[in-house]
Amino acid sequence: MKGLVVLGSTGSIGRQTLDIVRAFPEEFHVIGLAAGGNIELLAQQVEEFKPRMVYHLKGVGDELIPVNGWRYTPMDEMVVQNDVNLIMVGTVGREGLSPTLAAIGARKSVALANKEVIVMAGNIVMAHAQRHGVEILPVDSEPSAMWQCMNGEGKELRRIFLTASGGPFRQMPLSDIESVTQEQALAHPTWRMGQKITIDSATLMNKGMEVIEANWLFGVSFDQIQVVIHPQSIIHSMVEFVDGSVKAQLGPPDMRFPIQYAMTYPQRWENPSLPQLNPVEVGTLTFEDMDMGRYPCFRLALEAGRKGGTYPAVLAASDEVAVGMFLSRQIGFGDIPRVVESALAAHRSVQYPSLEDILDADAWAREYATGQRSE
Amino acid sequence: MKGLVVLGSTGSIGRQTLDIVRAFPEEFHVIGLAAGGNIELLAQQVEEFKPRMVYHLKGVGDELIPVNGWRYTPMDEMVVQNDVNLIMVGTVGREGLSPTLAAIGARKSVALANKEVIVMAGNIVMAHAQRHGVEILPVDSEPSAMWQCMNGEGKELRRIFLTASGGPFRQMPLSDIESVTQEQALAHPTWRMGQKITIDSATLMNKGMEVIEANWLFGVSFDQIQVVIHPQSIIHSMVEFVDGSVKAQLGPPDMRFPIQYAMTYPQRWENPSLPQLNPVEVGTLTFEDMDMGRYPCFRLALEAGRKGGTYPAVLAASDEVAVGMFLSRQIGFGDIPRVVESALAAHRSVQYPSLEDILDADAWAREYATGQRSE
Repeated sequence: MKGLVVLGSTGSIGRQTLDIVRAFPEEFHVIGLAAGGNIELLAQQVEEFKPRMVYHLKGVGDELIPVNGWRYTPMDEMVVQNDVNLIMVGTVGREGLSPTLAAIGARKSVALANKEVIVMAGNIVMAHAQRHGVEILPVDSEPSAMWQCMNGEGKELRRIFLTASGGPFRQMPLSDIESVTQEQALAHPTWRMGQKITIDSATLMNKGMEVIEANWLFGVSFDQIQVVIHPQSIIHSMVEFVDGSVKAQLGPPDMRFPIQYAMTYPQRWENPSLPQLNPVEVGTLTFEDMDMGRYPCFRLALEAGRKGGTYPAVLAASDEVAVGMFLSRQIGFGDIPRVVESALAAHRSVQYPSLEDILDADAWAREYATGQRSE
Repeated sequence: MKGLVVLGSTGSIGRQTLDIVRAFPEEFHVIGLAAGGNIELLAQQVEEFKPRMVYHLKGVGDELIPVNGWRYTPMDEMVVQNDVNLIMVGTVGREGLSPTLAAIGARKSVALANKEVIVMAGNIVMAHAQRHGVEILPVDSEPSAMWQCMNGEGKELRRIFLTASGGPFRQMPLSDIESVTQEQALAHPTWRMGQKITIDSATLMNKGMEVIEANWLFGVSFDQIQVVIHPQSIIHSMVEFVDGSVKAQLGPPDMRFPIQYAMTYPQRWENPSLPQLNPVEVGTLTFEDMDMGRYPCFRLALEAGRKGGTYPAVLAASDEVAVGMFLSRQIGFGDIPRVVESALAAHRSVQYPSLEDILDADAWAREYATGQRSE
């Protein structure tokens, strides 16, 4: 039985992680739950899974969550407990960084859905993981696909074809994209995900961050990663080996697949509640080149990733702020890349950053980006 | 340096195997060449690769092939030599069976393109391979695809999606298929292969034999294998694992990919002379259900495979004869399944056949099928 801590338990990843636990109640023991938002849902989860440790960003008390023997425990403390084996990092933005580092330090398995952690501090996280012999288990569908394709293969990669649905605005006239509404941007054509990542998927910031993530997780250079628009979201990525053979990982666009794989790795478990791929029903898979002009956030992510230093931290932080401002209707959709671009332009990067440098850059970028509100 | 014997060196598989040797002259040493047809080409190959052993079905002498120190050697003797490491079985039909068994008995690596060997004597070949600890390396593109997808995975398979181009007559009115010409049947839409396998690909007998082959090679039941029509021949097969994750192996339709992989396994080597897959150029991949009524040979293959015993040997032998008669214009295209069906119907199968039973059934079926000539 695996002892599990779920960080971000009331978010999209956290809820689906608990769905997997429900499918295999004999295999997982929920030891800790941490959330930043929906406290009513956290209370229900505590009632159902009876974790020993509970955390909420704003604190909780008996009056909010019925006592079940739980102890209020900060995330960094939660993840290092002896009986904890696996941490699902389903937080959003910067929140996951500190508990991820703590979990690695305690040699726990870390299933990482919160890609900003790798984007902002890839050098720190990967060095820390290597030092402690911890493998980061990717949860995002595309990195999970690459990882699955690499199973049993050597290091003989030539290229990665990172697929992208292209988001809801793939075919919209460019002039209209500037002023799309929150509702339009939140209506992703294929994936149902949390709000932050759904907006990042509409701008393709998410895809740019996946390139940075693949660069860190798999040691592939930026030049080896080619983003291909694949509107059906059935092929989650492809890996080409040096002999020209290509492997793809496919499945219905449902996050429970990569979540469960990270939780059961290296095994695969039958889960009757998951849908099955029917290639004939899918019928047609298509691939197109990406129109870079349509997705300035993608370009900014790649530039920041290639430059390295503290630029990726500024990218992640300014994007988090900009997306938040867009969702609270303080800025328009077209302002998101402008906020990020101006933060990157104003930033003075540290070339080989320490964790402190990264956190400083993060704090600076948040303040800078917040000041870009168009009032 | 791997010591290599190529059986069927002047056929399509043999010629492409020697192309791979040309690409890696420091890695392979051609020790033996055996052919059944084109003696002029065999002479050229002997001149170029200077093998120590040479074989031709009809015998060779100095007047036919210039002496280069080679010795005329039967295939069964060729494959067991001490300095031989790898046998490429690129023969057609029954020819490959005896040398395959000899090679396995001598614990050589066997790259098997000649699928009729497994179809007719799967029980004997697999038991022999297991007893001697020899892994059969599949060379056909579809079994190679499955094998590559299974790399690094456990036995947790749910299904195999075996792709089929559907051949040249996928959309032809059924009434016209009966009387297609040799030229039409030899014009495969995506693959360039030898004549026998090209006709088998037009009738989908080849696909039926691949189902039998997958059943033996990977221990998957007939019910776990679903044939999907995929006219582009880019996805060479897909494997679905019990957790619902699907892996596909893709590449340009070029037999040198699976041939090279079998030759370099478990490594992958960069070969600049091979084409590269460009998903955007491919653009669209489609999947359709197979129309069973269109492909009686496929149905016959599955029936024979499921019934087992000596039926698959009769299937392979009667098909080999029928295809030969079609190519020499003794019967029509629509007669191929009729010849096979009548041989299977007339046959009295032995349930747990010995090698002798299989060879008897093979001989019986050849004679029976030859008698079905429509004169």
